[in-house]
Amino acid sequence: MAQDKKKLVEAITAQEDDFAQWYTDICTKAELVEYSSVKGFVVVRPYGYAIWENIQRLMDARFKATGHENVAMPLLIPESLLKKEGELVNGFAPEVAWVTAGGAEPLEERLAVRPTSETLFSDHFAHVLHSYRDLPLLYNQWCSVVRWEKSTRPFLRTREFWWQEGHTIHETAAEAEAETQQQLNCYADFCERELCIPVIRGRKTDKEKFAGAEATYSIEAMMKDGKALQSGTSHYFGDKFSRAYDVTFTGRDNTLQYPYQTSWGSSTRLIGAIIMAHGDDDGLILPPAIAPYQVVVVPIAAHKPGVAEKAKALAAEIAKIARVKLDDSDKAPGWKFSQWEMKGVPLRVEVGPRDLEQGQCVLVRRDTREKQIVQLEALADAIPAALEALARDLYDRARANLEARTTAAATMDEVKAQAARQTGFIKTMWCGELACEEAMKEQAGLTSRNMPFAQEHISDVCPVCGKPARHMVVWGVAY
Amino acid sequence: MAQDKKKLVEAITAQEDDFAQWYTDICTKAELVEYSSVKGFVVVRPYGYAIWENIQRLMDARFKATGHENVAMPLLIPESLLKKEGELVNGFAPEVAWVTAGGAEPLEERLAVRPTSETLFSDHFAHVLHSYRDLPLLYNQWCSVVRWEKSTRPFLRTREFWWQEGHTIHETAAEAEAETQQQLNCYADFCERELCIPVIRGRKTDKEKFAGAEATYSIEAMMKDGKALQSGTSHYFGDKFSRAYDVTFTGRDNTLQYPYQTSWGSSTRLIGAIIMAHGDDDGLILPPAIAPYQVVVVPIAAHKPGVAEKAKALAAEIAKIARVKLDDSDKAPGWKFSQWEMKGVPLRVEVGPRDLEQGQCVLVRRDTREKQIVQLEALADAIPAALEALARDLYDRARANLEARTTAAATMDEVKAQAARQTGFIKTMWCGELACEEAMKEQAGLTSRNMPFAQEHISDVCPVCGKPARHMVVWGVAY
Repeated sequence: MAQDKKKLVEAITAQEDDFAQWYTDICTKAELVEYSSVKGFVVVRPYGYAIWENIQRLMDARFKATGHENVAMPLLIPESLLKKEGELVNGFAPEVAWVTAGGAEPLEERLAVRPTSETLFSDHFAHVLHSYRDLPLLYNQWCSVVRWEKSTRPFLRTREFWWQEGHTIHETAAEAEAETQQQLNCYADFCERELCIPVIRGRKTDKEKFAGAEATYSIEAMMKDGKALQSGTSHYFGDKFSRAYDVTFTGRDNTLQYPYQTSWGSSTRLIGAIIMAHGDDDGLILPPAIAPYQVVVVPIAAHKPGVAEKAKALAAEIAKIARVKLDDSDKAPGWKFSQWEMKGVPLRVEVGPRDLEQGQCVLVRRDTREKQIVQLEALADAIPAALEALARDLYDRARANLEARTTAAATMDEVKAQAARQTGFIKTMWCGELACEEAMKEQAGLTSRNMPFAQEHISDVCPVCGKPARHMVVWGVAY
Repeated sequence: MAQDKKKLVEAITAQEDDFAQWYTDICTKAELVEYSSVKGFVVVRPYGYAIWENIQRLMDARFKATGHENVAMPLLIPESLLKKEGELVNGFAPEVAWVTAGGAEPLEERLAVRPTSETLFSDHFAHVLHSYRDLPLLYNQWCSVVRWEKSTRPFLRTREFWWQEGHTIHETAAEAEAETQQQLNCYADFCERELCIPVIRGRKTDKEKFAGAEATYSIEAMMKDGKALQSGTSHYFGDKFSRAYDVTFTGRDNTLQYPYQTSWGSSTRLIGAIIMAHGDDDGLILPPAIAPYQVVVVPIAAHKPGVAEKAKALAAEIAKIARVKLDDSDKAPGWKFSQWEMKGVPLRVEVGPRDLEQGQCVLVRRDTREKQIVQLEALADAIPAALEALARDLYDRARANLEARTTAAATMDEVKAQAARQTGFIKTMWCGELACEEAMKEQAGLTSRNMPFAQEHISDVCPVCGKPARHMVVWGVAY
């Protein structure tokens, strides 16, 4: 068993040696996913899916609290329906999977496996919307979508991924814009509070915005290696889709009008964000809100009288206040410690013969390894306090990483020097021209992440062309 | 507004006139589904999806209580993987939708949109199973599947439907058989307790069993028109898939062994069962356990002083003990009554000026229309009591319908006479031969529903061929 333990630990590449390999090691060794026999597709295993279920539950409650309702749309989209809005189909056509036969018979019209569902929602809205009194329609769908990506990585880019897509229509442009912002803030708050990941909220440049959108807003998180992970997007469409799909309603003035539309999405990418924002060389570190188990109880010298029973009783007590796993398998404690550390369980409770005598247990934090002797009667207070402290510290460390790796630059020389020194976010002014955005890519390897809502004044001019600055942009290297 | 109400009510066909039309009227007028522009596919609207969410939540808790874990498998299955088990692919091939292109490029091998996932689970089991210590693996997946049906009806038969599919592997045949039975009983108990629908548990004949299964068990419910609705199935595969997909483990005796496999599924068909087991000419009648709203509060003369406020306060009180909707729209009370009756809300609370004076409200049951004056301080007891009574009565009425429409026959003359008199279940003995099963279809228009676990002795011989009887079969006309 000592060998088992060694094997388990050896299997993870160190972050410093190869961050990308460390990431995929975690994905498979912590049993989050398994590569499937379907190229580019993964299986989300029970431990990974349990994280996703917790994300879904917490996020769904937020959506419902603001009046959103869940629906289910068809999986397949007729090509003609997909093509009604030109920009969207142009944006997605290269990565659509096509169904061309049903049973033995070829289809008259091929059907796209949904890459996103704006077209279906718009078509449905056209069927059910009549009057301004029906508005707003605030819909959401939990499902998977398919995009034929060339190179794939678990959670970050796979041919199928699981997500939610909100789709809403509103009487006025102002209401739709407010919805777009509200949902972006919902994502940001969710990431910061539940996932302990600070994010930068802002607007995407035209180059980076969603195909067909008038405006795309995003939250951008920073991973431990300094790269950016877009963690949620919210789009404002104006009445573009309404016009393309003939979605109309009778307005207050009795005229036929087009509603204003939004969509917003977040996905299993968030699991990738959790892994890379918090994990270390021993494995995952899971934010308590979404951890499948918040506490693992490990008996020490479980064969000694009373230990196994006490561990079981303790786990039952803890179950009243936290999601708990009792590991009463016949593996050695050291092996169990390694395994549950790899799986990122926030807290470990150890109880052995001496603890039993003294009416205490040992409480160990996953992140700091801090050990605390806790009297059993104090455990019901100590556990929530430790979970809260761990969550706070996770956030603070992620925030510190974000700040340490964020710099400002006024000239291209500064941009290049900073980009060469470390991977991170570089803030510069920008004239708004596509050519300068492309130059930033060519000269410094950076893409625009977003134009933060919290704009700063760094210089007067665009560092690329020297023309007057219009926006402050955060640049980075994106996953 | 009186006109609106009339329109609403007129739109539903009477059950007696045309049960099939009544059914589709309910599906669309109660806003459960909308036909989509994708042929054979529906949109599940918020009210329908909320029912499905309640079913999912309650059923998922049952699965988890017996140790099952959720996972996500790929949506697409390579043809070669699908074909490894011959019977399964032969059973499903005529109704598989095929993906043949990704982006602009044709695929080297076409991919099936999953019609069911035994093949994917088996392939995954082969990757992750090593030792008998890993067993059992008890997995479940909530997803949609696609089967290219020729004629479709909402919830009963659509090209895409939403379901859960459990897939488990076990060390021994006995354990797998016990799992198959346990999950069938889980479905039966769920239908009877939560959906108030009595079911007949039994084993399918070979003709009706699942492609590739050694044994299929089903629960069969009876609709108001006497037709049968198969409402859940559970399959025992032996080691057939394990052998086809090379799923092996090192056994206790250190030899390589094949695990024994099960799968079991239930789907949005259950919503069809709810509609047709309980609904009446005014619309849906929803079992309280899965009703999106269990109580609707309707203010009467809402413009009178205090009424609107009281209705709002009442709804807030009721929210503590039940899912409640306050209908404070400006429609007339009669219109609201009709609308919420159509939507099947189990209880209605009316509160008007006179009620206000007397500190009371009116409580109305959807099924019996029974009106009860309830003092406001007694409402917290009256509502759960009324919900419970309604659920019990729904079950009893469905049970009475099942019993009234179930007969026994010893000869083909009796079978034909009974089948001509009414649609329902006919119990007969059966020799076990396919030819006699087919004769029952030709001569009396009946198919075998299942061979109930609760076998009875009706006669000594098969009514078709006169040979010795081996089973009692329940025959019927199935959806």
